[in-house]
Parts: sequence; structure tokens; C-alpha cells
Amino acid sequence: MDQKTHRCESDKQNLNNRLKKIEGQIRGLQKMIEEDRYCIDILVQISAVNAGLKRVGFQLMEQHTKHCLTDAIQSGDGEASIDELMKVVQQFSKS
Amino acid sequence: MDQKTHRCESDKQNLNNRLKKIEGQIRGLQKMIEEDRYCIDILVQISAVNAGLKRVGFQLMEQHTKHCLTDAIQSGDGEASIDELMKVVQQFSKS
Amino acid sequence: MDQKTHRCESDKQNLNNRLKKIEGQIRGLQKMIEEDRYCIDILVQISAVNAGLKRVGFQLMEQHTKHCLTDAIQSGDGEASIDELMKVVQQFSKS
Amino acid sequence: MDQKTHRCESDKQNLNNRLKKIEGQIRGLQKMIEEDRYCIDILVQISAVNAGLKRVGFQLMEQHTKHCLTDAIQSGDGEASIDELMKVVQQFSKS
Repeated sequence: MDQKTHRCESDKQNLNNRLKKIEGQIRGLQKMIEEDRYCIDILVQISAVNAGLKRVGFQLMEQHTKHCLTDAIQSGDGEASIDELMKVVQQFSKS
Repeated sequence: MDQKTHRCESDKQNLNNRLKKIEGQIRGLQKMIEEDRYCIDILVQISAVNAGLKRVGFQLMEQHTKHCLTDAIQSGDGEASIDELMKVVQQFSKS
Repeated sequence: MDQKTHRCESDKQNLNNRLKKIEGQIRGLQKMIEEDRYCIDILVQISAVNAGLKRVGFQLMEQHTKHCLTDAIQSGDGEASIDELMKVVQQFSKS
Repeated sequence: MDQKTHRCESDKQNLNNRLKKIEGQIRGLQKMIEEDRYCIDILVQISAVNAGLKRVGFQLMEQHTKHCLTDAIQSGDGEASIDELMKVVQQFSKS
């Protein structure tokens, strides 16, 4: 629960810049609702936000695999970490 | 481009309440990055946000089908509206 | 349960030709396993088959919406049919 | 292109049994089309087949990660293998 992942500043900055952009897009969606914008236009925008959020997830997943998982495997402790990754990959694929 | 959809106040309120909750979750994700939280925990949370955003989309899609699309079909003008809906359903399914 | 959908011969032929192709691809996957083909190559092929099967689904969904759903809406009986469609759209999006 | 993955007999048997079951389900779909079965029932069944095929994919992905990827990482050659896995994970998530 209090497991930590040390990320370098540039990775953190990069991830949070993307998340800030997504936060702005979510506010944009609220404005579209307020302004009675056409449903299909809003749905297209929701799809775009979802795809953007998944890209953040895949970026994080790659960093995780290249650092945390690689370390676990090199310490002979990969099995549990792989199970954990596979579980999140499946969850992601349905979301 | 300036096509509009009139939504009743309670529907707008309901959609925007969900979007505000999602906006808060996106800010929560930024905090998780700041605090060096474990990648897998962040990925699980991203999955949850994505699923929540899709639920907003499906709610909107249902309202669209029950109102806009139903009206179009009843005016004998359903074909183009159905093509438009099917396109967004497919986009959604990949996002 | 014994509800039927009358499809014209050319639509049935078209859908079943696609399904026969997919059936052949599933047999191809079994051969890849037999021949110890590289996991990633098999996974890429599984993705392709899944995408093909979804395309059959979307084609069927479009025909359903243009015929069955349109008929139901025109007979003033759209609500239940729309709920049913939305449910399958969501199921599809997770599969 | 001629990269191989050695799988033990029981894993091959297990994967191919699942694929044979899926092949049967694809034939079942063709029969449903032949018999003019209701679109929604066919769509529900397509969803089930897709989910089954994805489960085969995730099983293979797990075996790949526990064997091929683990070996690559232990030989200090993980980077390229991780990139390859991440690419297929993303492709899978859209299919």
C-alpha cells in the first residue's frame, strides 16, 4: 500500500503535463454539455480523451516494465510482478 | 458544426456531476505521480477513470439514441444518423 | 428466445463468408501453436482475428439498427429495443 | 521471422483446446446467421467469442512474459523485448 516508485523529474513532468491537458479536456466536455452541443460531437471528444488517458497509462506501463519489473526479474523475483502486470493489462483492455 | 442538442436541466446536471468527479480523479492522478506512488496503483486508478468516462459516454449515447436518433428515424431521416452513431460506437470501442 | 431476424441472402452470404475466413484464421492460430511460432507473432495474429470478428459484429449491429431498431421505433416501440442495443454496445466495448 | 518459442506439450494442448472450442463457436455463429437468429443474440455470442479469444491471448502473453521476456531481461537484453510487448499490448487493447 505504501510501495513507492521513484520517477525522475522529467518523467514526472511529462506525465503530469499530459494529465493537465486531459484535465482541461474534461472541463471542455462540461462546457460542451452546458452549451447543448451535439451528442455525437461530445462522444467523439470523449473518445479522444479516453485514448489520451490510455496513452498516459501505456507510457507508465512501459516505464514500469523497463524499471520496476526488470529489477524484480533481475533479483529473481519476477513471478509476482508479472502476475500483477498481467492483471492490470487485462483490466486496461476492458476499460 | 453548430448543430445543437437540447438537454433537460436534470440530464445536464447529472452528466456534469459525473464529469466533475472525473476531473477530480484526474487531479488525483497528478498527485499520485507527484508522490511517487507505485505504478500499478496508478494504472489501476487510470483504468477506473477510463471506465467512468466511458459510462458517461454510454449514458449520452443512450440519451442520443432515445431522442435525437428516434426523432430522425420518425422523420424518415434515420439512415445518416445511424451511420453517424455506428461510426462513434466503433471509435468508442477502440478508445 | 425464438425471436427471428429475416436477412436477405446477400447479407447472409457476406456475413458467413467473413465468418468462414475467421474460422480459417482460428485454425491458422492452432497451426502456429503446433509449430512453436514466436508468441508475439501469434499475439499479433490474435489481435487481427479479434478486429475482424468485431467488424462482423459492427456490420450486424448496423443492419440491426437500420432494420429491426428502425422498425421498432417506427411502431412506437423503440425504448426496449434501444436498451437492448445499448447493453450489447457496452458488452462489445469490453470484449 | 523464423524466431521460435518452445512451448511444453501441456501448454500447447491447453491453448489449442481453447482455440478448437473457439473454432466451434465461430461455426455456431455461421449457423445462427443461416437460421435467421435474432441480431442481438448473435452479437452477444460474438462478444463471448471475442472475450474467449482475448483470454487465449492473455494466457499466451503471460507465458511469453514469464519465459521469453524474463530470459531476455536476464541476458541484459530486455529493452527491445519490452518495446515489442508494449506494442502488442496496445494493439490488443484496441482490438
